[in-house]
Amino acid sequence: MIVLYTAPGTCALASHIALGDAGATYKTIPIDFRSGQQRSPEYLKLNPKGRVPAMVTDRGILTETPALLAYIAQTFPTADLAPLHDPFAFARVQEFNLYLCSTLHIAHAHRMRGHRWADDEETILGMRRAVPRAVGECWTAIENTMFSGPWAMGDRYTICDPYLFTLAGWMEGDSIDPADFPKIADHRRRMAERPSVRKVLGLS
Amino acid sequence: MIVLYTAPGTCALASHIALGDAGATYKTIPIDFRSGQQRSPEYLKLNPKGRVPAMVTDRGILTETPALLAYIAQTFPTADLAPLHDPFAFARVQEFNLYLCSTLHIAHAHRMRGHRWADDEETILGMRRAVPRAVGECWTAIENTMFSGPWAMGDRYTICDPYLFTLAGWMEGDSIDPADFPKIADHRRRMAERPSVRKVLGLS
Repeated sequence: MIVLYTAPGTCALASHIALGDAGATYKTIPIDFRSGQQRSPEYLKLNPKGRVPAMVTDRGILTETPALLAYIAQTFPTADLAPLHDPFAFARVQEFNLYLCSTLHIAHAHRMRGHRWADDEETILGMRRAVPRAVGECWTAIENTMFSGPWAMGDRYTICDPYLFTLAGWMEGDSIDPADFPKIADHRRRMAERPSVRKVLGLS
Repeated sequence: MIVLYTAPGTCALASHIALGDAGATYKTIPIDFRSGQQRSPEYLKLNPKGRVPAMVTDRGILTETPALLAYIAQTFPTADLAPLHDPFAFARVQEFNLYLCSTLHIAHAHRMRGHRWADDEETILGMRRAVPRAVGECWTAIENTMFSGPWAMGDRYTICDPYLFTLAGWMEGDSIDPADFPKIADHRRRMAERPSVRKVLGLS
């Protein structure tokens, strides 16, 4: 059985939703970030990166959200969560998720995780000030050029959708007004109505 | 024919080497970063992200290095550049490349691309000061826990190797001493001796 290590408010939500979409048998184990459990010797032994998500499979542990999402799609092919037999279409799915991972998530992380890239408080505060602008540029690019609609990649729901939904949930915290991004806001509403999402969020 | 947009010193080198490893028919088009060609209307029309690599295929354009590398491996399966029929092993390859993309490359980018995450000069300088520490932490993690040897993922050369080689080429610029990371330094030496790499670097 797959075990997913999660924490509220993190990008682990994307893999959690995808596991539900895939019809996987899994359980989740929450890691308490407030008490720094992600830095505990026990957790670091499991995942030296000290972050979530981490997914334990019968072959070993996996990390990095886009890798987990592709793994879920490939391991549960009947759920049809990615175009597995079309390298170009699969690359487009990966390209979308990679932008979320390495550009949008990174821009967002400068609000609360500035210590990764700076060693003094003033620089950390300076980075935090720029978050609404930097994150806003990412959402503008997604809204205007990357999001196909009605789902992220077009007519088909894919592993891009739970990831997009997860990061869209950070908008308000980053001082982004969802009303400025109507396609993404609409996607977020439709995602939140899906039974698989409501179940993961504890709403049903 | 595949067309790869590149620029010297960028991560586009990874896809360039992989195309050679794959035996692909391709050509490269250099983008002149010094004159800001990546921000020219012509290039932005092709790739709105204004970055390299961008790979033009007969189906359309693709960006994001880990997506390109997986695409190359899937499109040229006889080159055996990734474990395409083993979702777990493929996820491990992706996990490695994702760390390079979203952690190491990002830490490095704070040296020259600070304007992405800050709006004032002092913050940009503060981020730059932290680069040797932040990048060094990444190399320590790769050397100690991620790199299998003799190749990145073990006995088999994969799409992780040209990517690792590419980013290892940035060590000195980031004030990292390769001698502190003997496994990576040895990998870099062996990569540099490969005919496919020498050809891409214009050394043979």
